[in-house]
Amino acid sequence: MNLSKSPKTEELDQIRQNLARLDPVGVAEELARLERPARAMVFRLLPRDLARRTFRYLDPAHQEDLLAGLSDERAVRLVEDMDPDDRARLFGDLPAEVVRRLLAGLSPDQRRFTSVLLGYPEESAGRIMTPEFVQLEPGMTVGEALERYRRRSAEIETHYALPVAGDRNRLVGTVEIRDLLLAAPGSRLAEVMNGEPRSVKVDEDQEAVARLIQAADLLAVPVVDGEGCVVGLITVDDAMDVLTLEESEDLARVGASEPLGRPYFSVSIFRLARRRMVWLLLLVVASTLTVHVLDAFEDSLQAAVGLALFIPLLIGTGGNAGAQSSTTIVRGMAVGEVRVRDLLRTALRETVVGLLLGIMLGALGVAPVWLFAGRSMALVIALSLVTICTLASLVGAIMPILARAADVDPAVVSAPFVTTVVDASGLLVYFLIARAVLNL
Amino acid sequence: MNLSKSPKTEELDQIRQNLARLDPVGVAEELARLERPARAMVFRLLPRDLARRTFRYLDPAHQEDLLAGLSDERAVRLVEDMDPDDRARLFGDLPAEVVRRLLAGLSPDQRRFTSVLLGYPEESAGRIMTPEFVQLEPGMTVGEALERYRRRSAEIETHYALPVAGDRNRLVGTVEIRDLLLAAPGSRLAEVMNGEPRSVKVDEDQEAVARLIQAADLLAVPVVDGEGCVVGLITVDDAMDVLTLEESEDLARVGASEPLGRPYFSVSIFRLARRRMVWLLLLVVASTLTVHVLDAFEDSLQAAVGLALFIPLLIGTGGNAGAQSSTTIVRGMAVGEVRVRDLLRTALRETVVGLLLGIMLGALGVAPVWLFAGRSMALVIALSLVTICTLASLVGAIMPILARAADVDPAVVSAPFVTTVVDASGLLVYFLIARAVLNL
Repeated sequence: MNLSKSPKTEELDQIRQNLARLDPVGVAEELARLERPARAMVFRLLPRDLARRTFRYLDPAHQEDLLAGLSDERAVRLVEDMDPDDRARLFGDLPAEVVRRLLAGLSPDQRRFTSVLLGYPEESAGRIMTPEFVQLEPGMTVGEALERYRRRSAEIETHYALPVAGDRNRLVGTVEIRDLLLAAPGSRLAEVMNGEPRSVKVDEDQEAVARLIQAADLLAVPVVDGEGCVVGLITVDDAMDVLTLEESEDLARVGASEPLGRPYFSVSIFRLARRRMVWLLLLVVASTLTVHVLDAFEDSLQAAVGLALFIPLLIGTGGNAGAQSSTTIVRGMAVGEVRVRDLLRTALRETVVGLLLGIMLGALGVAPVWLFAGRSMALVIALSLVTICTLASLVGAIMPILARAADVDPAVVSAPFVTTVVDASGLLVYFLIARAVLNL
Repeated sequence: MNLSKSPKTEELDQIRQNLARLDPVGVAEELARLERPARAMVFRLLPRDLARRTFRYLDPAHQEDLLAGLSDERAVRLVEDMDPDDRARLFGDLPAEVVRRLLAGLSPDQRRFTSVLLGYPEESAGRIMTPEFVQLEPGMTVGEALERYRRRSAEIETHYALPVAGDRNRLVGTVEIRDLLLAAPGSRLAEVMNGEPRSVKVDEDQEAVARLIQAADLLAVPVVDGEGCVVGLITVDDAMDVLTLEESEDLARVGASEPLGRPYFSVSIFRLARRRMVWLLLLVVASTLTVHVLDAFEDSLQAAVGLALFIPLLIGTGGNAGAQSSTTIVRGMAVGEVRVRDLLRTALRETVVGLLLGIMLGALGVAPVWLFAGRSMALVIALSLVTICTLASLVGAIMPILARAADVDPAVVSAPFVTTVVDASGLLVYFLIARAVLNL
């Protein structure tokens, strides 16, 4: 079914029938590919129950769009059904006035949970935790624990790893449902539980939490406050969403744009242009530096106009070498392999790599340039390649690490900025070498 | 503790004591940051039990390194403890001779599982599925199902979503442990299970499977063969690993390198250089096109050497606009928002975005260039910026989509190749406009 254009009214019924055959995940996927007005129209026409079950699988940006087109009453009903952490994520993006109206409509319990979550800073663990969970005490028997799980878990988000808290609600362990099922019903939790559980602080960075869940293959990790008391649980599905979001952001920044924050086709052309404009403009301003460098060497250019022929090749290669090294380091930092204290070690490695690459390219380039432009030019190009590649790799390695040290997202100063820095300094190197070799 | 350099022998004991205080996940994390010889040394010195429990949390590349330094007997014991899917992933990277020796040492069951998994193509769902799982029949009662889970799940990888298979092992539903615990023990599975379960084909692409698990918030998805019979289960932790791996690969390629496939610090400098060399060389060869374009316009350059001053700025901006559009589309394709059939729609959107960006930059650039280089030059630069930005966005949008249509990873032809293509065509545009405007 082709949903890419805005459907005409007579097509809507067909679309609706087709969607009614899908499960909620499938419906959400197809809705995501519609333009905004069509999405709102189709969603309103879905059978009530399917619409309700589909809502939670939609991107928060689409949830926001859809709510805007619904009556307060219907909007509240959709929002009441959401898990508290998903609801907090959605509310974080909504205008305060809408949040106030929706909160007022929620049941008292859900209203309280949502307010608690919204009280934590954006990007913190607290924002994505589920505040409703089954909590156990170390003195319980396995049978009692299972009984509590049965009683409580019907109304809340599914989770299979439960925190065990002792005195004054302090986390003392975790236990998985599987272990409860395998243990003798009469044994004490204290004997069955994992007594050295991993936990995260409520104000910890979401990405770090997500990486921990991934590294340790956890289904959920308990969230504790400053006193070590359990206040929530972060589940693996939320961890996956955080990682995907972070990775989209990194890739956007490596590609010189601000992250869109919503699915591609639901971003208008003007918004797309706006997200890119700032970066592009900054980079243009930065690259006026290249104009000045060339202006300073205009005499040399006048004397040997052939020098101009190799400018794009040299700075392009420098840019590529810089991009190679910076994206490697940005990724290494994202997954926790490279840290700020590795600055020197990384700079050294990358400088050597850049030198090796430069030597190889320089060696391979000598013959063709000699044939094309003579011996002196071959020497200039080879020496420039070696210097520029080394410089580019070094700059590409240290800029993201310095950014992290200054608490800036490393991806912000990766490939595009490295390229621009390397362009100007590469030109300088090129003309200095050319002057020396060609006696200009 | 500073583990970044190779430790001296007297330091090893200290390191060992420090590590013994960590949990296996923490030990794995610290080991990952050591250089290879130090890692092998420290691992051999770990208490046996801790070493055994740590092994599964290590990167496959590190597992491979460590096995090489152990006796066959000790290696087999570590490998026997692994989950079959993790073991298959590791074996996929090992030399055939080593795999043969290790397989021979495994218990018959584990040997069989591993051989089955290794029989599926790389990157397919079959490679990462767990072939050991608790399977239920629709006619069972809930009580019987829980009893079977208790009996069987002790020896196998934990999972909480179980497939229900009917006649001739055909998948008819899935049921979660939570639903079993909440249902009356006497009710039939057929009434409790989800009768329209999501499943994946055994030869399906791993990334697609992982995206499904993420989109549908699944804990596990059943894997079926061509006849719809259940052959395995893919769990959410494997899905997360697949996504992270795919994203590392995309980022590496957007940054013009081959993916490392192993943690940064465990890659030698020579291997780093080798992974980048091929790309860099290809791009240098491609960018000799720019030399030819400039060579063709040498007369114009000679006549107006000032033209050279703006070459880096113009092609840099084109490269950035191309990178913006290509990374956006590469990501959109990775997360399934943009598909091959969206080619025209995407090309149109991006062309308009590029045009808008070009017009804005051109308008902003007129005044400074006029002051710096005169009115005609200002006109040349403004027109070139508009054309180059539009062209770059268009090329950046369609190259990744065409790559996907040709079954090539879109990231391979993203930013770096787009930039190089745009460099050459941008120069052509620039000099044609300059010739026309300046009457060269």
